[in-house]
Amino acid sequence: METWIHNEEKYKGKILSLEVGEVRLDNGEVFGREVIRHMGGVAIVPVIDDSVVLVRQFRIAIGRDILELPAGKLEKGEDPETCAHRELGEEIGYQAGKLLLAASYYASVGFTDEKMTIFLAFQLQKVAQHLDADEIIQIVHIPVAEIGERLARNEFEDAKTIIGLRELLAYLKS
Amino acid sequence: METWIHNEEKYKGKILSLEVGEVRLDNGEVFGREVIRHMGGVAIVPVIDDSVVLVRQFRIAIGRDILELPAGKLEKGEDPETCAHRELGEEIGYQAGKLLLAASYYASVGFTDEKMTIFLAFQLQKVAQHLDADEIIQIVHIPVAEIGERLARNEFEDAKTIIGLRELLAYLKS
Repeated sequence: METWIHNEEKYKGKILSLEVGEVRLDNGEVFGREVIRHMGGVAIVPVIDDSVVLVRQFRIAIGRDILELPAGKLEKGEDPETCAHRELGEEIGYQAGKLLLAASYYASVGFTDEKMTIFLAFQLQKVAQHLDADEIIQIVHIPVAEIGERLARNEFEDAKTIIGLRELLAYLKS
Repeated sequence: METWIHNEEKYKGKILSLEVGEVRLDNGEVFGREVIRHMGGVAIVPVIDDSVVLVRQFRIAIGRDILELPAGKLEKGEDPETCAHRELGEEIGYQAGKLLLAASYYASVGFTDEKMTIFLAFQLQKVAQHLDADEIIQIVHIPVAEIGERLARNEFEDAKTIIGLRELLAYLKS
């Protein structure tokens, strides 16, 4: 185990904050640590007519477009299921009759507490889409029958998308 | 697409740096962006005698222990395969006769460029273990036969571990 000796919030932003300090290990040694605090988020695997609805969007962190599950950040105090319903409507314009918890995980425990929760969404009905002002996305339908092969070819490059699609295949086989 | 109007390195640390600025979207709108730069890393799924070798370790970002695949950060200029061989030796004391690329993904594209590469490792032979001075870990063997059920129960809480174990099962079934 490790215990903070001292730590300081070096930056507080809109979506993350940075904490830097030193910890003492059980063996008495002292080491520096850098931690990114993040509210966490949800991602949804929306299944419509034997296809999954993904979104392609530009991400400044990697400087290019990437294909992802619809997803969003948790608002303060919001539970993941409520967030999933909200994001499904806002981002791709659907309402889900059935939401199943598929996975819940830390994105990168080496430096951040960001936790993602993934839901499978079924019984989808079209509603109005309400994108955030800073979201420009392209909707992409992928047939469920193609997912296994595309995963095997390492076509998906985003953690939540790989996990969500693998969970969908495991669920459909169970 | 988005283009930086201005951006500034607000913090440069040992394992990450923080970049903050504003971007212009294709629709002309301007928004703030916060990006964590990270060198990326590798994780390994070591398969020995029908078991997978995992490590349990304390992570200060989440304030507790978590069960994970053996993993490590890329050194500057290091290719992922070299890093995987190095970490396998250092962290759990094994040398792999066969390393297969299983997945490569961005951990959380909403705020970081951290990229993880996961390898399946077979034909393992014991060598001396050389942990970093700030690593205290417990080695845990999980029978391959139990992995599917444990994944279905959402027992694993770490992104690379879920992806690596799912990839192993997909590989063994193929």
